[in-house]
Amino acid sequence: MENTHDFRSPAINLIGVGALKDLPLELMPYKLSKALIVTDKNIIRLGYVEIVEKILKDLFISYDIFDGILHPDCTISFVEDALTYFKKNLNILKKDYHFIISVGGGTNHDCAKGIAIVATNGGDIEDYEGYEKMTKPSLPVITINTTSGSGAEVSNVAIIKDESRKVKMTIADPKMMPIISVNDLRFMPSMPPEITASSGLDVLTHSIEGFVSTEASPVTDSLAIDAVKLVFGYLRRAYKNGNDLEAREKMMFANVMGGMVLNNAGLGYVHSMSHQLGGFYEEVHGSCNAILLPHVLEYNAVSIPEERILKISEAVGAKANNKQEAINKINHSIQNLSEDIGIPTHLSSIGINENDLELLSKNAEKDINSLVNPRKGTFVDIMNIFKAAM
Amino acid sequence: MENTHDFRSPAINLIGVGALKDLPLELMPYKLSKALIVTDKNIIRLGYVEIVEKILKDLFISYDIFDGILHPDCTISFVEDALTYFKKNLNILKKDYHFIISVGGGTNHDCAKGIAIVATNGGDIEDYEGYEKMTKPSLPVITINTTSGSGAEVSNVAIIKDESRKVKMTIADPKMMPIISVNDLRFMPSMPPEITASSGLDVLTHSIEGFVSTEASPVTDSLAIDAVKLVFGYLRRAYKNGNDLEAREKMMFANVMGGMVLNNAGLGYVHSMSHQLGGFYEEVHGSCNAILLPHVLEYNAVSIPEERILKISEAVGAKANNKQEAINKINHSIQNLSEDIGIPTHLSSIGINENDLELLSKNAEKDINSLVNPRKGTFVDIMNIFKAAM
Repeated sequence: MENTHDFRSPAINLIGVGALKDLPLELMPYKLSKALIVTDKNIIRLGYVEIVEKILKDLFISYDIFDGILHPDCTISFVEDALTYFKKNLNILKKDYHFIISVGGGTNHDCAKGIAIVATNGGDIEDYEGYEKMTKPSLPVITINTTSGSGAEVSNVAIIKDESRKVKMTIADPKMMPIISVNDLRFMPSMPPEITASSGLDVLTHSIEGFVSTEASPVTDSLAIDAVKLVFGYLRRAYKNGNDLEAREKMMFANVMGGMVLNNAGLGYVHSMSHQLGGFYEEVHGSCNAILLPHVLEYNAVSIPEERILKISEAVGAKANNKQEAINKINHSIQNLSEDIGIPTHLSSIGINENDLELLSKNAEKDINSLVNPRKGTFVDIMNIFKAAM
Repeated sequence: MENTHDFRSPAINLIGVGALKDLPLELMPYKLSKALIVTDKNIIRLGYVEIVEKILKDLFISYDIFDGILHPDCTISFVEDALTYFKKNLNILKKDYHFIISVGGGTNHDCAKGIAIVATNGGDIEDYEGYEKMTKPSLPVITINTTSGSGAEVSNVAIIKDESRKVKMTIADPKMMPIISVNDLRFMPSMPPEITASSGLDVLTHSIEGFVSTEASPVTDSLAIDAVKLVFGYLRRAYKNGNDLEAREKMMFANVMGGMVLNNAGLGYVHSMSHQLGGFYEEVHGSCNAILLPHVLEYNAVSIPEERILKISEAVGAKANNKQEAINKINHSIQNLSEDIGIPTHLSSIGINENDLELLSKNAEKDINSLVNPRKGTFVDIMNIFKAAM
């Protein structure tokens, strides 16, 4: 019987203070000559894109900049705007661009992946919703990350919002794994506290969901537990003082580790459900995750071995003697952490309407992340979790 | 100040029961048409190469087989034999082969990397001794692993023995990172007990040395500690019963994790020293490592934070209250484990001659692995460690 637990990541992950300086050496062997930079105006204003432009100029790589990412959460329209804009003077479908560089957080990386998929595979981005729908490798993508949350810079997953259907599509395919990721600590202190908070809780959710997923492996288990420890050890500090470089560095590593976990172990109901909230309302992904996580854990507990729950409990810094005590302590710790960093702990306080829950639950049941949730439920179960989180 | 801790690995690591079955899907996008299989006669006899041949035939990829690896530890002559043999009817330097597939353990992967380097960079393999001496990417290498020890299938390091100088060269360059690694559990039960034992201790040494190396990062720390736990939890079982598939599977994951640790955190004096033993005599790498490890740990202890030593001690299953107690317990545990799986615990019992120690120590001091050892010593220090291990 086949039973595989593959581990995939960008082959090259540059991480640390000044990591971006090493990019030219990595780029040279590829002999690429034309790049498309995908970013947003805030990242340009912070001067980060200029640093990337300088690197490209020094390598005699020509480039264009698409800065039409207007808000968090990549939408189909951003991807289409980028494709339309560039088709005006260049035919991207004929691969005039050799590669795409995204500069920013998860939204920008997801958008870059979306463009890279359609550039080589044709059609519309909606055609690729689900798992492994691409037939050709995407254009090569290089991710230069400026937040500590989504893990998108090390994953072959893109979350793209379909505004007409009010859902977030999950597109997952190894054929769009970034070839190089960069996490340069110099870019992190500019992250505002509310982004630090919500993206840090996103890291926590990736790690805990991945640890209890049906696809977990010893490799992802190892990264997941240590990422949880790092979040509990350093997120409060990074939130309180954005210039606390030790805390920023630890959260940067936690983010990379959480990204590797989500990519290889998958996630679960928390993400299935929070994708619906993000699709239907304009909610911050990390906050939705943090609100839902305790309730999903409570629901899943019966299907998770006690030993695993105790390991999570130890990682959050709360020793427990049995499963239920551990669940209580983990959930208490998560809610405490959320409160300390200004993240709400109830869905009602972020404007979720009880009347929408049935539709949201039906959509969540179909979300790709539900496939690896440790406990198989119905949309009614999911609706009850939503209700408990109100 | 720059301070980076990059993480590099093959982008694709297929791991598990039947993992090799997924290789065709991964190979297709590369559109490769001619392969060189690098292996040995024992692996052919076991029928593993035939399985790989079938995959290539189904993909219409033509191939040749080099089976001239005659014993453990890749030598310069194996690399030269492969290059000479194929230059007879094919000009490998003109890239007639699109990629190289190694089937076997670390020796075969190292040899494949050696061929892949010279194929694109020219010259002799000795020209590449050291770190980042290549100017061009190697031919693409795919590693199909059949042991649980070297981690070579996921590393950009090749250890190649120069018999004339009696040293093992370390060649390390990200430009020869394998593009795909495969660890298929179906290939592991054929490993004989003595290989299970010595390669398992190699995993242990990669993990412990990497954990205390000056290049350790949160990512490698996480993998290292869990690999240590897996070795202590399952190596005895895999040794006693090669068909204990649970134990084999855990050791397979430990091996991948240890490989990722050594590749990204580097190693230390144990490897600097055991490379000399392997170069000078015909000693089994894993056994030399296991003999030296306790003595190097004792020497390094003063430069390793207590917290790290306590973590190792916990991982080997021996709680301790302070650094020295922890070191004692770790070393006792390592020697116990060695004895239980038939590995000697003294250098004298494997025929090492005290008169050679000065030269061995001088060469060890120059070994690339010494650069990241936590304590900086002289060749006299190294000689004293050798003596203590006699």
